[in-house]
Amino acid sequence: MTQDPRLLRTANGTAPPTSATALRRANLSSVLRQLRDHVSRSRADIADATGLHRATVSNLVAELLERRLVREVGIEHVGAVGRPRRAVALHGAHVGALGLEINVDYISVHGRDLRGHVLVERRVSFDAVGGGPDRSLRRLGLVAQEAIEAMERAGAVPAGVAVAIPALVDVACGVVKFAPNLDWHDLPLADRLSAALGPLSVPVMVDNDANLAALAEYTSGVAAGTPHLVYLTGEVGVGGGIIVDGRLLRGADGFSGEVGHLPVDPAGARCGCGRHGCWETKVGLAALVRTAMPEQAYALPGLPVSDPEERAAEIARRLVEGDRGMLDAVAQVGRWLGLGGSIVANLFNPRVIVVGGYFATLAEWLLPHAQAELERLVVASPASQCRFAASDLGFGAASRGAASMVVNHLIDDPTTIMSSLPRPTLP
Amino acid sequence: MTQDPRLLRTANGTAPPTSATALRRANLSSVLRQLRDHVSRSRADIADATGLHRATVSNLVAELLERRLVREVGIEHVGAVGRPRRAVALHGAHVGALGLEINVDYISVHGRDLRGHVLVERRVSFDAVGGGPDRSLRRLGLVAQEAIEAMERAGAVPAGVAVAIPALVDVACGVVKFAPNLDWHDLPLADRLSAALGPLSVPVMVDNDANLAALAEYTSGVAAGTPHLVYLTGEVGVGGGIIVDGRLLRGADGFSGEVGHLPVDPAGARCGCGRHGCWETKVGLAALVRTAMPEQAYALPGLPVSDPEERAAEIARRLVEGDRGMLDAVAQVGRWLGLGGSIVANLFNPRVIVVGGYFATLAEWLLPHAQAELERLVVASPASQCRFAASDLGFGAASRGAASMVVNHLIDDPTTIMSSLPRPTLP
Repeated sequence: MTQDPRLLRTANGTAPPTSATALRRANLSSVLRQLRDHVSRSRADIADATGLHRATVSNLVAELLERRLVREVGIEHVGAVGRPRRAVALHGAHVGALGLEINVDYISVHGRDLRGHVLVERRVSFDAVGGGPDRSLRRLGLVAQEAIEAMERAGAVPAGVAVAIPALVDVACGVVKFAPNLDWHDLPLADRLSAALGPLSVPVMVDNDANLAALAEYTSGVAAGTPHLVYLTGEVGVGGGIIVDGRLLRGADGFSGEVGHLPVDPAGARCGCGRHGCWETKVGLAALVRTAMPEQAYALPGLPVSDPEERAAEIARRLVEGDRGMLDAVAQVGRWLGLGGSIVANLFNPRVIVVGGYFATLAEWLLPHAQAELERLVVASPASQCRFAASDLGFGAASRGAASMVVNHLIDDPTTIMSSLPRPTLP
Repeated sequence: MTQDPRLLRTANGTAPPTSATALRRANLSSVLRQLRDHVSRSRADIADATGLHRATVSNLVAELLERRLVREVGIEHVGAVGRPRRAVALHGAHVGALGLEINVDYISVHGRDLRGHVLVERRVSFDAVGGGPDRSLRRLGLVAQEAIEAMERAGAVPAGVAVAIPALVDVACGVVKFAPNLDWHDLPLADRLSAALGPLSVPVMVDNDANLAALAEYTSGVAAGTPHLVYLTGEVGVGGGIIVDGRLLRGADGFSGEVGHLPVDPAGARCGCGRHGCWETKVGLAALVRTAMPEQAYALPGLPVSDPEERAAEIARRLVEGDRGMLDAVAQVGRWLGLGGSIVANLFNPRVIVVGGYFATLAEWLLPHAQAELERLVVASPASQCRFAASDLGFGAASRGAASMVVNHLIDDPTTIMSSLPRPTLP
């Protein structure tokens, strides 16, 4: 098909792809985007909206039909004007996206089809630190395989798998460069998981958990659709994901949004990373536990907190009881949360900072202090209104965002990701 | 022309504009972009590259010819294959872009045509602080008028004027919200300058000086073309401009890149802004002068530094002489520069941080300390290579970037900005 001269046109005039393959990919993507954004479209509508020739559109739609990504939906009703025309729509029920998250003590799963229907969602408690990379990857492979089989039983073929992990990730090749809280280094996670899924041959992507949680917030969270949005995850470590103009900011290497170790206090305590006064030493869950529950032996600088959700729940119980020491400790952490928020707000000028993890669990006590400090420290206040908001996606945010990334990838680059879909032979 | 049904197609398939006017603008822009990126193009080439119908392209080119933005250039030689075809090119010599910068003690001017030929470039010493907004705007108007007349004598009609200013700017309406070092508030600079230029009726834009200097660095600086680039200006105040994926990051209100008042030291000195431990109190020129030349009475926290360039030159002289106290002071400021750079690098993951103003003047002494501290503090080091680089654009960077913004605006949105160009009546 790449020989078809009618395909040697791109619908993206701003940066015309250079090869026939790239042109074809860009045009398939334009057609898919039309079908994602509308219940159904006639080929003529798609031609009008994309500027592509009708012959080219028919040609592209034929390929998408053949790949079973779109389907004929009969007559499109175009209101009073114009006569009804045969239309196509995304074959939403047939194509799936699987998101996984592997974290310190759990694996979470979110599988849905292109219509957004959730097909599988679960959370598995698992000690990834104790298990180490090998046992953890075996377990991740089994969980992924079960999820894929469940999705296929529901009639959806996963077009890809994305894995969220609290780590610096080389996104281009799916390698975990460094996961501080797991103590994993240079792990080719994408290749290893692909091998484990061998016979299923589903493309595997890997990204930082906070990046994918930010994508989930932008797609379906409390501030969904806010073009300038920052997500902060408050767990054992503190991570950040940044949405700029409605797109995930990655930077030159995919290492953007590393908020946990911003230097905020030259006289501060030693961090797990070996530096001093990192923001994580002020707002990480360990910092709060250390301040509020000094009696708890594990609450030492740089040491992981066991069972973080239970710790957060315990802190919440004490706050409800009006424990004075706990209220003071949370107020102090809240002010440091606001200070870190002001750094993010001064640099990115977002409209909202969504907080997850234990920040969300304790939002009603933390955020008033954080918001006040944010407004005191942001240079552009009050001209720029930036507010803190608590995430309601819970601990599933990253796996949900991972599924969104698979969908975006499918829409942006159908030719690579579609390789996993069965191609029925034509008559 | 907006009635022409052939214009009801866009070359931008990813986000089809909704109105006929927007479609026409997007298509004119696609054609202009083609002509910016190639010496000359035939209408057929443009149709192939944009996916627009040839009839639509001819129609758009006709409008651009009428507006004298493009010109016929006769036969295009398309190598061995295909027969020569009549081509068009940007009418580069005929259209100009004027960039201005107003700062504490100078106004600078950079006017060029679309081919990039510099038509006017000058710097006027001027006390904007003493003059206040009214006298400063009168002076700015006169300087702009002279520059426009000089450009017109050279045969180029300015398609727009952009003004750079060290301030928080509401870019949408060209209002200076707050210029700390000028002490200007809520000044409708664009409207006031437009009124001053009345009869010339040239569109006026306003933006933050660091944003526009960053644009100049991306367009023509030492790291030109680096898609992820941060610019830091070291003058009386410290500002930042951020390029992400080759585009200026503005944020929700255009207030991004406010690095000067990042809180880096809870125990730090009081800043001119009233807060404590702002980064500016560590790396602003006043901080260096205060540390290195305590004998100089004006070097008090928060007070402006008189004649900053002369101060920087004096410091450089002492460094060349090997003045021990000065070397220590510069090393200390260099480390704080590296710490601020690490905040920017952790959040944006840029490939390069270009420094201007006095940071550039003293680069050979400052940057080794800054680079070492950057590498110590960036979480992703050494996986992410981010380096400091000294700007070579001098104090003209912001006005040069302002001219670039006019050009970008002309290409992105021909219909609004072109209103200033004389439209010869058709036969």
